Order: sequence, then structure tokens, then C-alpha cells
Amino acid sequence: MPKRNKIIAVYPGSFDPLTNGHLDIIKKASAMFPEIIIAAANNLNKNHCFSLQDRLSMIKEAVKDIKNVKAAAFDGLVADYLARINSFILIRGLRAVSDFEYEFQMALMNRNLNAKIETIFLMPDLDYTFLSSSLVKEIAILGGKTVKFVPPCVEKKLKLLRKR
Amino acid sequence: MPKRNKIIAVYPGSFDPLTNGHLDIIKKASAMFPEIIIAAANNLNKNHCFSLQDRLSMIKEAVKDIKNVKAAAFDGLVADYLARINSFILIRGLRAVSDFEYEFQMALMNRNLNAKIETIFLMPDLDYTFLSSSLVKEIAILGGKTVKFVPPCVEKKLKLLRKR
Amino acid sequence: MPKRNKIIAVYPGSFDPLTNGHLDIIKKASAMFPEIIIAAANNLNKNHCFSLQDRLSMIKEAVKDIKNVKAAAFDGLVADYLARINSFILIRGLRAVSDFEYEFQMALMNRNLNAKIETIFLMPDLDYTFLSSSLVKEIAILGGKTVKFVPPCVEKKLKLLRKR
Amino acid sequence: MPKRNKIIAVYPGSFDPLTNGHLDIIKKASAMFPEIIIAAANNLNKNHCFSLQDRLSMIKEAVKDIKNVKAAAFDGLVADYLARINSFILIRGLRAVSDFEYEFQMALMNRNLNAKIETIFLMPDLDYTFLSSSLVKEIAILGGKTVKFVPPCVEKKLKLLRKR
Amino acid sequence: MPKRNKIIAVYPGSFDPLTNGHLDIIKKASAMFPEIIIAAANNLNKNHCFSLQDRLSMIKEAVKDIKNVKAAAFDGLVADYLARINSFILIRGLRAVSDFEYEFQMALMNRNLNAKIETIFLMPDLDYTFLSSSLVKEIAILGGKTVKFVPPCVEKKLKLLRKR
Amino acid sequence: MPKRNKIIAVYPGSFDPLTNGHLDIIKKASAMFPEIIIAAANNLNKNHCFSLQDRLSMIKEAVKDIKNVKAAAFDGLVADYLARINSFILIRGLRAVSDFEYEFQMALMNRNLNAKIETIFLMPDLDYTFLSSSLVKEIAILGGKTVKFVPPCVEKKLKLLRKR
Repeated sequence: MPKRNKIIAVYPGSFDPLTNGHLDIIKKASAMFPEIIIAAANNLNKNHCFSLQDRLSMIKEAVKDIKNVKAAAFDGLVADYLARINSFILIRGLRAVSDFEYEFQMALMNRNLNAKIETIFLMPDLDYTFLSSSLVKEIAILGGKTVKFVPPCVEKKLKLLRKR
Repeated sequence: MPKRNKIIAVYPGSFDPLTNGHLDIIKKASAMFPEIIIAAANNLNKNHCFSLQDRLSMIKEAVKDIKNVKAAAFDGLVADYLARINSFILIRGLRAVSDFEYEFQMALMNRNLNAKIETIFLMPDLDYTFLSSSLVKEIAILGGKTVKFVPPCVEKKLKLLRKR
Repeated sequence: MPKRNKIIAVYPGSFDPLTNGHLDIIKKASAMFPEIIIAAANNLNKNHCFSLQDRLSMIKEAVKDIKNVKAAAFDGLVADYLARINSFILIRGLRAVSDFEYEFQMALMNRNLNAKIETIFLMPDLDYTFLSSSLVKEIAILGGKTVKFVPPCVEKKLKLLRKR
Repeated sequence: MPKRNKIIAVYPGSFDPLTNGHLDIIKKASAMFPEIIIAAANNLNKNHCFSLQDRLSMIKEAVKDIKNVKAAAFDGLVADYLARINSFILIRGLRAVSDFEYEFQMALMNRNLNAKIETIFLMPDLDYTFLSSSLVKEIAILGGKTVKFVPPCVEKKLKLLRKR
Repeated sequence: MPKRNKIIAVYPGSFDPLTNGHLDIIKKASAMFPEIIIAAANNLNKNHCFSLQDRLSMIKEAVKDIKNVKAAAFDGLVADYLARINSFILIRGLRAVSDFEYEFQMALMNRNLNAKIETIFLMPDLDYTFLSSSLVKEIAILGGKTVKFVPPCVEKKLKLLRKR
Repeated sequence: MPKRNKIIAVYPGSFDPLTNGHLDIIKKASAMFPEIIIAAANNLNKNHCFSLQDRLSMIKEAVKDIKNVKAAAFDGLVADYLARINSFILIRGLRAVSDFEYEFQMALMNRNLNAKIETIFLMPDLDYTFLSSSLVKEIAILGGKTVKFVPPCVEKKLKLLRKR
């Protein structure tokens, strides 16, 4: 197990796209742990709206001012990714009961695949309780304003969805 | 805010197709508010089983005897639609906990997009607790009887699904 | 069934004591229905912290500026009370899944005891999601500040709890 | 109603593929009832990963040593299938709250379609709480080990998914 | 493990008092298993409304016409009681998500205390979804009618609660 | 905000008594943060089974071999306690959905009382999913074995409950 001042916490997800809810979780985590890696999944089986390249560059732009936070992409199982980078802490946000059940199942599975992994759950600020990447995309497609829900660099990309 | 005797309550949904559960909510709402508009979403991103035209004509046929109820179609965000027709009341049915979480998220988002909107939740009669449009379609496709679950005009259309 | 411009909606509860969350529900309901009665239960089997007299006078003070809202006490079943005052609409607030299940059970039972009763559920503003009368009392007893959570007239009474 | 020593309990599902969680439910049920039929749905509307033939042969291989258990395929509604084979007991596993809600809806619908049907819910061992066919497939596709989660005959087939 | 034609299933509870919901579960279970024992807990730590003697005699009266059902009292842990009478099946009713969580915890604990025990969950008819012993007692105390919710022998005893 | 190598995380609770589930959470947290304080509430309004002195000495005995873990008692609000000791991290365990809702309400309230506080949720090992202090006490009172559920020093005290 790494020394406490070398602890790396991983925040994995699709980030398709990153929302202000994700950003809130990242800020909270960055105050707790020495290093945070935001890990964007390169899951070819999922239909992502934005390419891995786009998702990653939006994250990098949004977190550029938070010193101990990096962004990276990963292939395969998140449990294997943590083993490769010598991390044992997985960070996830919890907004509601439905989140909770899915996240619990994933946390149990990840612990089963790699016994060292601990998942810690953080709660976003109330203002982000109702936010999700898919809802934000739906609003953008239906012509609604998303400026309150995502960082400026994501807002620009979302506007392009409308015009498709 | 409109005068209380001019209040319009909107019941939005896909209604793909209308079930007796929806109809029960509509009847309950029509006793409470001066005017009810059943608003069928023209969401091109969703794969509807019935066309907007078909969904709307089934609704109109089913509610033709309830005086203060109208049917309409809408494009874009429901929050914008309510603003356009000067309504601030959104009606939704709640059957179970899973409904509740999704509906809560949507209600919070709608309030965020248009601060005047209030969502009110009604509970269908127990006999409709297990009903949903998707379950009714699945039963029709698998050759089951749907006569107890939908109005007669919907039953006719559902039978055609089997023959596809 | 009463005419729509004579509809009375009842908001029953213990109100031990009234919180800003209750007040938010009352304001939302008062914009929807011609008349609202806040009905404080005189349930001798429950251990209330404040007397019926106190609970009622705090409510009256808090809603004195909302024209179509009255406060009243009731004995026995709420279903019987609604029948006595010729109302068929019960209003309840929903904050979370645990609320939902209890409220659903009560709504089903009330409908069973009096088939005309419809329960409508309203959602308080996000800021009141975590508020409850019992939590407010616990904070007061432990010496915390409750000024953000209750109307001024309730705040005064809560301060006395500390000194007991 | 059949005599108690002739009771047939049906365990229906997609089994796409059978997991050790399913197998655990089957073993528990086989100790309770004279005869168990594992009924694999031939639902052409669902996108199965394995063919009906494959799903059925994996089940047969996995349960070959449990005397009172058989496997069968069925078309159409499960409620009609139970009527055809003179069974009134449906067995389902419950792992979590989200399971529970879906299963409740299905159980109510099945009782409505065939009033004689009773659904009984069994709880798999804790070790299988986080298992599901879809999660197992996802792990296989992402290159993870599934040997702890499925019977050997299923493990062989899952490995082929990786190579696609 | 006992032979299948000698299986005893135990339905434990407080039954303070027995409701029509309990009775519905008992009837469903009696069609599935050779012998059912309704086991009333003699838990001195709980404040029961009716004495063990009263609870037991109400159960016996209510089930006297169902051949394979008996009533009994038990002390201590239900897991130990099942071991003493050579039973491995525990029956519980599930009405809602809140039931589910509590019942899951108890089922896991019972399995831990006695590895042979399997808990099976049955779902009462929809009409009993909102029923509970505590709600029935509350209605009786508040002067409501309970004739639809409990067997006649329980109704008689409940009426006496009012007069206290 | 304190430097990251001086972070103190607080795990508050009644610990009436400490279980192996609590201990599991403590061990997980101690690998993540430089210092952990287990804070036993001296809440005079709750009916504790064990005195504050007893609860605290059981905790101290159980964690004596974990270097960065201390035990302490606190009065009043936990939000105020964290401010006094210059901590901003609250640790809580999550076992099930019902936990989640209560914990969410408390976390939101604590954030409201002290905006700096972040609650992080950890998940105990599956073997402790069904454990709670109250269940352990009930088993002890009913004469069951609790040796698998609590540390040896707690087991000794629990045995005394039986003899009362």
C-alpha cells in the first residue's frame, strides 16, 4: 500500500460530457487526497456522444487550475487500471437512491476483481442533485440553455449538438 | 400568475400508447383544475412505437367525454411549452419508488429551467400500479390480452403490433 | 363533488413544529387551489413536543399574510375530517424515497377509508430537502441555530427547548 | 390446483448467460419443491448475446447433477406458459431494491394475467449480490476474469466474446 | 434436510394483531408447502398491544379451517426455533421497498445464525399493500372502521381498544 | 483548510456498542487519511444501552493496534465538534438504501450547519452488510451468539445483557 502522502485517488467515468456536478466532486476530492486522476473510459461498446479525445480535452480545460488533478484515458476494467497505476481509491458521486444501487453493485464487483480497491462516495452540492450528462445532452438537443450546468468549454461543444 | 379559475394544468408524456393508468390520472386531475392539457411529446430522438399523429388521435378519442380536457402536441422542452401557454402546473403520476426518483430529477430540472413551474404528483388507483406503456406493448407483441389495460381505441391499434 | 371555485384542499400533519419546508408547500398549494386548510392533528397517542394550542398558534402566525389559507385542529381520522368539511383533496410534501413509501401507504389507506379522497404530492424547494420537524427539534436541543429552518415565531419557541 | 407432491415451480429468465447467482437460486428452490423447470425465454424482441440453443445447453450442462431440475424454452407470455404446464409457482431471485421494484411490477402483472400464479422470491447468497448476466458479459468483453462468476461451461463461451 | 413431503415452513411475526394481509400470505403458503406453522414471538422487550395468549387465540380462530396450518408461540431467536422443529423455510410477506430492506437484513442475519435457513418472500394481494398491524391499531384507536382489514375475531378485540 | 498531511477525519456515532462493521470502516479510513478520530456522541436524549464511559473504553480497546486512530467523546452538534478540532471530513458507513437516505439528510444538514464539512461514505465488507448495533443487542438479549459480530471486548459486555 502506498504511503499516505503518495495516495492517488481515481475518479472514473464516461464524462460524456463533464458537468458541473462532476467538477464539484473533483474539487471536493482534491482537498482530501494528494493526487486525483480523472479517468475517462475508452469503452468502445458504449455509444458516446463525444469522442474520447473530445471528452478528455474538455476535462483538461475544466480542471487546468486545480493543481493536484490530472486527466487520463483508460481501456478495459477500471479495477485493472487502478492496479497499473498503484492506486487503491475509487471516487464516485452519489446523487440519489438509484445511483446508490448501481454504484454499490459496481463497488462490490470492483472489490471482488481487486481486493485492495476501496470506493468512496461523495455527495455533490444540492444544486447538482438533478444533473446528469444524459439530461444535459437531452436539454441541448431540445434547444434549452445548458450554461448553468456545464463548464464553458463544454457549453461550446454542446451547442453544436443542436445544429446536427 | 393566472387567476385561479383560469389555471391550466399540463400532463405531459410520450403516451406511446395511452393506458388506463394515464386515463385515471387525467380523470383525477380534471376534477381538481379548470383546464387540463394532455401534451404528447414530439421527441424525434426517442423511438416511439406509434406516430405522434396516432398517439394524439388515441388520446383525443379516449378523453372526448371529459369536458375540461384537451390534447396537444409539443416540440422541445416541456418547461418552454408551459411558458408558451401560460401554465405553471405540471401533472405526473407516481406508481413506485423507481418512478419517484426519475420524476424528482425531472421536476427539479424543470423548476431550474423555469422557476414558476410546480410539479404535482398524483397516485393512480391500485389496479394500475403495475401498468406502463412499455409493458402493455410487450404483452401485445407476445400475444397477450390487453383489453383490461387500455381504452378500446388503443386496444385496436395494439392488436396490429402482433401481426407485424 | 364541490364546484371547482369552491375546492378546499387540506394539508394535514403534526406540525410539531411548523418548518420553512411546510411553509413552502403551503405557499405552492395556495397558488393552485381556492382555499387551503392546514389541519393540525390532535393525536393524543403521539408524544408531541408542543401542545396543540402552541402548534396551532405558530401556524396561524406564520400564514397570516396568505389570504386563502386557514389553520384548524382535528380529532380522529383525517379521512373523516375531510368528509366533514366537504373536501376531497389531501396535500402532502415529498422530500425523499423514505417519505414516498410512508406517504403512499397512508394515501392508499385514506382512499380506502374514503373513496373520494385524492392525495396530491408537492415537492419542496431543494433548500428544504433535508428539513424535518424532528431534526429541527434535535438541533435546537443540542444548541444549534435553527433560524434558517423555521419561521421567526417558531424560532422563539424552539429556543425555550434548550433551557429545559 | 395440483397435489402438493406434484408441484412444479418455474424459474423463468433470459439466462444470457446463466451465472452462479442463478445456479444458487436453482439449488435453493430444488430443496423446496418436487420439480423445478428453468424456463429460458425465446424473446425475439430482445437482443440476446447467446442464441436460445446456446443458453439452453449451458443451463442443461450446469444443472445435470440436480435430479429434480429440468430446462426448457418457452415462447410468448410466461403466464401462459405456466398455465400450459399446470404450474402456479414462479420463482425469482432478489438481490437489491432495484430488482425488487421491477420484479414486483412483473409479479403483479403476471397475477393479473393469470390469477392462480404466485411469485416467490428467494435471496441468493451474499457472494452473488453484485452478479448479473450483463455485468458478467461486460467484464468478459473488457478482458476480465469471469471464472468465479459462472459455471465452467459458461466460462468457455464467455471467453469467445473477447475474441470477437 | 427433511424429505420434501415433510417440509415445514414457518411464518414468524408479532401478529399484534393478525391482519387480512397476514391471512392472505398464510393461504398462499399453505398451497405450496405440506405444513405451515404460524409462529408468534413472545418477545418481552417489545411493547405489544395484545398479550401472547390473545395474539395466539386470534390466529388459531382465523386459520381453523385451513388444514395444514398450525399456530405456535416461540421464545428467543427465530433461527433457533427453526432448528428445534427441524424446519429450514422461513416465510415473509413483502409489501414495499421499506419492508424489503428490513426483511433482507433479517434474512441475512438468520442465514448467518443458521446456515440452513432459507427465507422465501411472498407478495400479498394488492388490496393488502397498505395494511399493517400498527396502522390497523391506529385506525381502531382513532375510531375508524377496521372490518375490511382484519378477520372477525380480531375486529372484536380491536373495538375494545377504542374504549380504553 | 488544513494541509493534506494534517487532515483529520472524524467517524461519529453512538457505537452502542461498536461492531465489526464499524471496525471495518475504521480500518479502511485509517489507510486513507493521516488521522482518524472515532467520536462517540454523548447524547443524553437517546436511550443508550451502554454508558458513554463503557462505549468509549470498548472502542479504545478495539482500535489500540491501529496507530493513526483515536477515540473521543463529544457533546452537542457534530458540525460544531468538527469546527472545534479543525476537521472537515466526516466518515460514515453505508450498508443499504435505508442507510443512504438517512445519511444523505444528515450530510445535507451538516453541510448547511457548517459549509466546510464534506461527508464521505465507505462501504463495509459484504459480511457486515446485515450488521447493526441494535440487531447485535437484540441477538444478545434473545440468547444468541454474537462472537462473529463484535470485537472480543464488546462480546464480554454483551453477555452481561442476557443476565439482566
